[in-house]
Amino acid sequence: MGVGYADEGAMAPGNRSMSHYDDLLRRLSDIQRLNQANAVLGWDQQCYMPHGGGAARAAQMAVLGRVAHEMFVDDATRTALEGAEGAGEDPTSDRGLTLRRVRRDYDQAVKIPTDLVEAMLRETALAHDVWVEARAKSDYAAFAPTFSRILDLLRRQADCLGWKDTPYDALLDLYEPGMRTAQVRALFDDLKPGILELLAIVRDAPAMDDSPLRRGFDEAGQIAFGEMVVRKLGFDFQHGRQDRAVHPFCTGLDRTDVRITTRVEREWLPCALMGTIHEAGHGMYEQGFDPADDGTPLSGSISLGFHESQSRLWENIIGRSRFFWNHFFPGLQRQFPGVLDDIDVHRFYRAINKVEPSLIRVEADEVTYNLHVLLRFEIEVELLEGRLAVADVPEAWNARMRDYLGIVPPDDARGCLQDVHWSAGLFGYFPTYSIGTILSAQLFDRAERDVPTLHEDLVRGEYGSLLGWLRTKVHRPGRRYEPTELVERICGAAFSSKPYIRYLHDKYREIYFAERRSVPRRADA
Amino acid sequence: MGVGYADEGAMAPGNRSMSHYDDLLRRLSDIQRLNQANAVLGWDQQCYMPHGGGAARAAQMAVLGRVAHEMFVDDATRTALEGAEGAGEDPTSDRGLTLRRVRRDYDQAVKIPTDLVEAMLRETALAHDVWVEARAKSDYAAFAPTFSRILDLLRRQADCLGWKDTPYDALLDLYEPGMRTAQVRALFDDLKPGILELLAIVRDAPAMDDSPLRRGFDEAGQIAFGEMVVRKLGFDFQHGRQDRAVHPFCTGLDRTDVRITTRVEREWLPCALMGTIHEAGHGMYEQGFDPADDGTPLSGSISLGFHESQSRLWENIIGRSRFFWNHFFPGLQRQFPGVLDDIDVHRFYRAINKVEPSLIRVEADEVTYNLHVLLRFEIEVELLEGRLAVADVPEAWNARMRDYLGIVPPDDARGCLQDVHWSAGLFGYFPTYSIGTILSAQLFDRAERDVPTLHEDLVRGEYGSLLGWLRTKVHRPGRRYEPTELVERICGAAFSSKPYIRYLHDKYREIYFAERRSVPRRADA
Repeated sequence: MGVGYADEGAMAPGNRSMSHYDDLLRRLSDIQRLNQANAVLGWDQQCYMPHGGGAARAAQMAVLGRVAHEMFVDDATRTALEGAEGAGEDPTSDRGLTLRRVRRDYDQAVKIPTDLVEAMLRETALAHDVWVEARAKSDYAAFAPTFSRILDLLRRQADCLGWKDTPYDALLDLYEPGMRTAQVRALFDDLKPGILELLAIVRDAPAMDDSPLRRGFDEAGQIAFGEMVVRKLGFDFQHGRQDRAVHPFCTGLDRTDVRITTRVEREWLPCALMGTIHEAGHGMYEQGFDPADDGTPLSGSISLGFHESQSRLWENIIGRSRFFWNHFFPGLQRQFPGVLDDIDVHRFYRAINKVEPSLIRVEADEVTYNLHVLLRFEIEVELLEGRLAVADVPEAWNARMRDYLGIVPPDDARGCLQDVHWSAGLFGYFPTYSIGTILSAQLFDRAERDVPTLHEDLVRGEYGSLLGWLRTKVHRPGRRYEPTELVERICGAAFSSKPYIRYLHDKYREIYFAERRSVPRRADA
Repeated sequence: MGVGYADEGAMAPGNRSMSHYDDLLRRLSDIQRLNQANAVLGWDQQCYMPHGGGAARAAQMAVLGRVAHEMFVDDATRTALEGAEGAGEDPTSDRGLTLRRVRRDYDQAVKIPTDLVEAMLRETALAHDVWVEARAKSDYAAFAPTFSRILDLLRRQADCLGWKDTPYDALLDLYEPGMRTAQVRALFDDLKPGILELLAIVRDAPAMDDSPLRRGFDEAGQIAFGEMVVRKLGFDFQHGRQDRAVHPFCTGLDRTDVRITTRVEREWLPCALMGTIHEAGHGMYEQGFDPADDGTPLSGSISLGFHESQSRLWENIIGRSRFFWNHFFPGLQRQFPGVLDDIDVHRFYRAINKVEPSLIRVEADEVTYNLHVLLRFEIEVELLEGRLAVADVPEAWNARMRDYLGIVPPDDARGCLQDVHWSAGLFGYFPTYSIGTILSAQLFDRAERDVPTLHEDLVRGEYGSLLGWLRTKVHRPGRRYEPTELVERICGAAFSSKPYIRYLHDKYREIYFAERRSVPRRADA
């Protein structure tokens, strides 16, 4: 353990655990600050950095990342952690939970050898441009060799981390701690039939008209309206801001400084507006961690799934709801004088919820979205387990697109080359999009039961009771519990697709039956 | 020296100096990247950070600064430096100059004990708010106790750094390496009579009308015009950008990513425009370091005086010149339709060069500016040497304002409390403003002799030959030479106030005699 008398005496006389625990936390707080600094650099890189500054920025971020990593895997961290663990803290206390969290992070960090980290950084740095070019030319064969090398590194990474049933478990665990591949499969098994059933209904219905969303909307007006909306939802602009970026994202530089970004398309209203709500959902999570946990390992997001549950809940369950638009639509009409005067809220609501199988995941509606994720998940598992060859990915992709969505990409650019993730070595990441989506409905379902006034509040455009519930149940616990534990604590049940299926069916059966009934009226108009 | 066989063998078999030198440079390059990262955080803090993010940002910057400092003063740096020094490099080679530079930085860094660094950080962090409040209430007595404590720390700092003639030498050296207090005094002794003589001429002349500059100028138009101008001067927006900030500044995040900022006042045209040119002058210096020096201790600015010489040269010698406005004035009129239609370039040129003794340094004209600096320099030296008591600063300030500028501040807010520097512990910093101003004329004087086509180019609005000369003579040498050496190398002479005095007299005698002659015309209009 390397702990001597002098050490104890110098740091906290008569209290051995204090000294190690405090030392550990001071160390981790410094590392957290360095990681936050790196997040500032990443934000600037995407929002403001001049074109020619890219190489220097990459170097700055690499050094900062390396220094933070070295400080974490340093022997001094291990000594402090082991010393603190030896003090016999109550495992259910905040100290006990902190040590469990740090132990998990530490073990994971030291399992990956430095040469593997560096090989992955090198390979993915090169792969990005290869992917960009392959996508531009829709030339999967140009990407395949790089992809094979990344897969080899991912298999090594999984082996280093350790796994039992499938190597995919080890990678999934990086993004959704404690979640297993079999559980993800079970969630999709529950989800798929319900989605396909809804899709059949949609296919039989007349095409939905979303042209009102494609009229010209002044860009500054879009930004202003979106910011007004998320301010009302609860995003705190004293401790956050919004900027424009090509690929929208949210990054918490600290609980007190959360940056969201949006992309504005003049002729596609949902791009900025729904994007802003989505990112503000991420942002309110980041702003909602317990101030008492500041600087400790308990502060932060527990998983990507939980993060996504917050963005999806606000974007879709709230932001695409009838009560939301009943409240905000008159303001939207006023924001863009003359543009939406001939549209009523009913028609707008249906337009913004249009369901249509499409090629691109990030543009998919609520109903088809999870099918896009499912096919990626299945392909990833098969690739990693060696049951699918890299060369055969386009075929596997297109076959599943036909099966699940009834359409086939005309080229790989709009097929298996569309997402950046694989070129970045992000494997096991896609499922968290669906986990978050599923979880958003499960959480909302629980909030409806815990907060008796919820519906009434939402109808009146009051979002405080919902945000308050999320703060207490989801945000403030931070990183205390594994995702599976936290779902259990909040909902009294395991992860389940059922609330989401119920939500989709309630909502879209109503929309599409109503749509069918309203056809004569539309034809008259 | 702590260098053993195993060490040598492991790093660079058979070449002892290579190993140490390369190790040193790798280490310093990492530290430079961390400092650049901290500069990104500082830029964001002043440009975009939400109000509530201040405490977290301060913590991030403190940790990053501490980590970079610890890496620099680490024994491993000393070992590498001593090892490299032992290799007998030619002191005039790049390697030799690099080692001289690092030795200077290292010795300075290790001379200040950590407890003093921390005491100064603590004291100045508190002092900032004390100063803001004292200035708001114009209550010098409220600032005095804090100022006394900072002075004590500054005296300790000077003693740690070491000095012979006056402790002020040690502090001045931090900002203007190698410059001595006596030299600054001599520069001012040369400068003062010439300025006072000009001021007498100005006082006898009729008041200059600068009201055309106070008409309403569209803010977006001001930004657009300023950016067009500095792009023509040579600021590279592929490797830089401009944002708005309350207190304008320039920060080089890297040679390839230089950020300038500006403040826009609708009813004071020079604020944004001349500010943008000033910061772009700093920025072109940062963009001009030799790419071959990237990541090495030779890349960077040699002193604040040299930095300021670049901003002053572009802002004043170019940006307030007759040839500049002959070229740009028609475009300015077009930028603001109807606003300046009744003004001709001659009148505009005189307005933008109006001389008038005023209370605030940062708003001072070219002629009076250095008197503001002189009085601060004199007060600082007397304070540090204990010849002036903290309590007596307002009296000393006001007496000098009366002597030098003929006006007396009505309150200390517009007197000795106006600048942020003392509350930040920046002592020995003010003289660099005048050193830069003096140097700007000395450099331009030399450029006129070195570049035969210079005047012709400038008249045609071609700035490439001037920028090219500055690149070669001032920018690319980076940190190879001490400021005094570099002036000598460029100009073949020591620092001298003479070219600046000549520049002022040539320019302002012409403006003010012309002004006097034009009075009847103005009365007729």
